[in-house]
Amino acid sequence: MTADCLFCKMVSGQIKPSTVYEDMDVLAFKDINPQAPVHVLVIPKKHIATLNDLDASHAGLTGKLIIAAAHIARESGIAESGYRIVMNCNADAGQSVFHVHLHLLGGRVMRWPPG
Amino acid sequence: MTADCLFCKMVSGQIKPSTVYEDMDVLAFKDINPQAPVHVLVIPKKHIATLNDLDASHAGLTGKLIIAAAHIARESGIAESGYRIVMNCNADAGQSVFHVHLHLLGGRVMRWPPG
Repeated sequence: MTADCLFCKMVSGQIKPSTVYEDMDVLAFKDINPQAPVHVLVIPKKHIATLNDLDASHAGLTGKLIIAAAHIARESGIAESGYRIVMNCNADAGQSVFHVHLHLLGGRVMRWPPG
Repeated sequence: MTADCLFCKMVSGQIKPSTVYEDMDVLAFKDINPQAPVHVLVIPKKHIATLNDLDASHAGLTGKLIIAAAHIARESGIAESGYRIVMNCNADAGQSVFHVHLHLLGGRVMRWPPG
């Protein structure tokens, strides 16, 4: 973890997020500025700044983020109606916290293009 | 593979996509209706209909989709400017091909919310 990272502070418990799921490798909590009836962030507990910092050794961990999102979608009752998973890297995508995270959005019809 | 799946036909070579990346597990090709200067689809070669069909055994394969997308972003010159990864599940998200796929979009500023 890094001392000045907001999401690392949530992993360590220094800041308490609105947690919806947690396992050994993954933490998930409600987005504080939700863009859909269900809007959850799923993060690796390990600090990785951006998608550009992933290498082949992170495949299992990265996949767990997606599988956790699908699990949360099921628990939230949106698995059948549908949901969107979004990951942003760097400025053009609007990445604001430099700790890899996945947005899970659902509970409404999502438009196209995706932003 | 399933006989009537568009993306399985691309994996088997029956239909030729505009391929930008391929390895043992993953195929990536240009979206035929691009929503950004770079818009690539990344798919597992194995047929999996939706994100709801993933289980823990798919973590490594699912992570490889993300890591392949980051690699393609680098090759496309958008890694530093930024890019968005999007995965859609079922009707509310607008999933149109029922073979798991990831959208990689970049080369422009992406808006928020993501659709």
